[in-house]
Amino acid sequence: MWLRSTWLAVVYTDRGGVLIVADASVRLALTQPSRTPPDFIMLELLTLGDYFGTLVFAVTGGLAAAEKKLDLGGFVLLAFVTGVGGGTLRDLILNRGLVFWAEEPAYIVLCVSGAVLVFFVAHRLPRLHKALVWSDAVGLAVFAVIGSAIALESGARPLVAILMGVLTATGGGVIREMIRNEIPLMLHREIYMSAALAGSGVLVGLDSLGAPTWVAIWVGAGVAFALRGAGIVFDLHPPTYSSARRSSASAPDDG
Amino acid sequence: MWLRSTWLAVVYTDRGGVLIVADASVRLALTQPSRTPPDFIMLELLTLGDYFGTLVFAVTGGLAAAEKKLDLGGFVLLAFVTGVGGGTLRDLILNRGLVFWAEEPAYIVLCVSGAVLVFFVAHRLPRLHKALVWSDAVGLAVFAVIGSAIALESGARPLVAILMGVLTATGGGVIREMIRNEIPLMLHREIYMSAALAGSGVLVGLDSLGAPTWVAIWVGAGVAFALRGAGIVFDLHPPTYSSARRSSASAPDDG
Amino acid sequence: MWLRSTWLAVVYTDRGGVLIVADASVRLALTQPSRTPPDFIMLELLTLGDYFGTLVFAVTGGLAAAEKKLDLGGFVLLAFVTGVGGGTLRDLILNRGLVFWAEEPAYIVLCVSGAVLVFFVAHRLPRLHKALVWSDAVGLAVFAVIGSAIALESGARPLVAILMGVLTATGGGVIREMIRNEIPLMLHREIYMSAALAGSGVLVGLDSLGAPTWVAIWVGAGVAFALRGAGIVFDLHPPTYSSARRSSASAPDDG
Repeated sequence: MWLRSTWLAVVYTDRGGVLIVADASVRLALTQPSRTPPDFIMLELLTLGDYFGTLVFAVTGGLAAAEKKLDLGGFVLLAFVTGVGGGTLRDLILNRGLVFWAEEPAYIVLCVSGAVLVFFVAHRLPRLHKALVWSDAVGLAVFAVIGSAIALESGARPLVAILMGVLTATGGGVIREMIRNEIPLMLHREIYMSAALAGSGVLVGLDSLGAPTWVAIWVGAGVAFALRGAGIVFDLHPPTYSSARRSSASAPDDG
Repeated sequence: MWLRSTWLAVVYTDRGGVLIVADASVRLALTQPSRTPPDFIMLELLTLGDYFGTLVFAVTGGLAAAEKKLDLGGFVLLAFVTGVGGGTLRDLILNRGLVFWAEEPAYIVLCVSGAVLVFFVAHRLPRLHKALVWSDAVGLAVFAVIGSAIALESGARPLVAILMGVLTATGGGVIREMIRNEIPLMLHREIYMSAALAGSGVLVGLDSLGAPTWVAIWVGAGVAFALRGAGIVFDLHPPTYSSARRSSASAPDDG
Repeated sequence: MWLRSTWLAVVYTDRGGVLIVADASVRLALTQPSRTPPDFIMLELLTLGDYFGTLVFAVTGGLAAAEKKLDLGGFVLLAFVTGVGGGTLRDLILNRGLVFWAEEPAYIVLCVSGAVLVFFVAHRLPRLHKALVWSDAVGLAVFAVIGSAIALESGARPLVAILMGVLTATGGGVIREMIRNEIPLMLHREIYMSAALAGSGVLVGLDSLGAPTWVAIWVGAGVAFALRGAGIVFDLHPPTYSSARRSSASAPDDG
């Protein structure tokens, strides 16, 4: 329990998150003899992963804006929506007071940076496509477990916590596609929501079995990343309605 | 007043709503001599109507996903958005703390069930089309009065309570169509929003005239259902802008 | 500081805002010798500007509904979303309790009036096109500074307050276009978001330099209006991604 509140404090810390964590580790390590150094490394990595995921999501938002030939304002809007949209919905639904990026401006800076970066160099990014897809998978995994862990911390029930993980990881992308007038690929082409669902489910399951928080977090994130990675490597697609229908015995009608 | 809080407690009760209501009826019937058995039957029916409406809205969300050939994740998203989207917006705007489905997981279960059901059997549902349209009318009527009643209970002004009823009944469908990149039929083809508006208006009006809550609720729901039903039976459409324009005296310009 | 809370009270007052302001001016002028009459004129103008902006935004929402040939329900929905959508998002994100229009029904009345007005006379509005574009510029400027000032009043950080100004001024239009399945013009064609950004930025900057609130508000609003006006008069467009790319040295790839 105390471990969980510690890393939440870290995630929402003001700036120089890593330094503060390092400082906090020393102090906690002195006062909490049961706490072992490896935990802190895990927590720092999670904070870094969260920042990294926000930046990567912002970059994918910028690329989505480039495809529609938007102006810089459009780039910033889509980067912002993709980077922090899911977490914003989560915070509103859980009634957590100020949304996370209003308390920690680093997220705003990351989103704007991602947008500006892409606006000026997007035409050079195609060669980075592979790196981006894999970075996005890291963001997906980290956002899913962070979303679920924050929900548990807020006292949400397990089922709600799982939903909040999926929402944190995928909500921003869905709103971005709503603004762009596209149907999100993740709803009919890619192993994406199911990877987030699996990661969040594993975290909530392990937590309710009494596993240490960092174990639950990292196993959950690992499962989400592995599933998404398998989808990328083996080019897997989830069964869509038409294929489900084809494999069914009954004659096809107009659904 | 106490009647209203009772059924709200019922609507948000944890599970086995009906059993708890039955239990509560017995106890209240003993302590509240003025309360007559028919009230409880009305309240139980409302709770059942709310669950029924959620399931039916989830099924229409699933059918909307089938039309776009989404995967199971897409089915669940659209079922969820259609089933609880309107009530979620209402709870956020009224600042009611946790949204209703975070406190009562039965709604999540209903939405996921509706999605899974449709994913596997949607091609057999066309013959059920008529049943679905009428079930949807039940959901519309119940959601409109529940939305307005919850708003009044939260202390909202009459005008706001009416809006909240319309929002609860139609908000989910509008968000679903935003995700699907369609313009909601209810905005240009169907007697739908106006039915919700009439039902919410009647409830709020009767309530401000001092009518017993269950009377206001059921008369309001009846009016909404009757209007929507008339729209279905007689294939009525509300006048759209172009028809309003045609009937106007002035020469048509490009608006 | 007290000036700011005064006009906020004015903005959110129940009805007859102007009369109450006039009344409050007299009383405050007596008790606060440092306060000069011109301030109150400024505050009254801001309240009037807010109402005016809401009505104008509602009218543009109605015109957007006319283009898609919606029914009256659709007109009201788009008018409402355009008129109060941005401020609603701002209030939810800042966790300000009830959203502003739930406390002050005048906004609802303004939005419904705008929708009904356009539904019956939109075909006569084209000649008013020029007046509408300039009225919309007034709404944009007022909404941007009101959004930022409310955010500062709620204790938001400068960066967040700037974002909230942009969100208040542009959020409603973005949601309207999401419902209409169009990509917002302001994201790729017009000096619009940047005008809001400049106005909010100037207000927040002047406020943090210690300028009197009404000076910060009116200079900010003036900058936003001037920028938007220059965009209209000189038909300026912000550089979009494709033009940014063209002017870049590197050979064009598929972004």
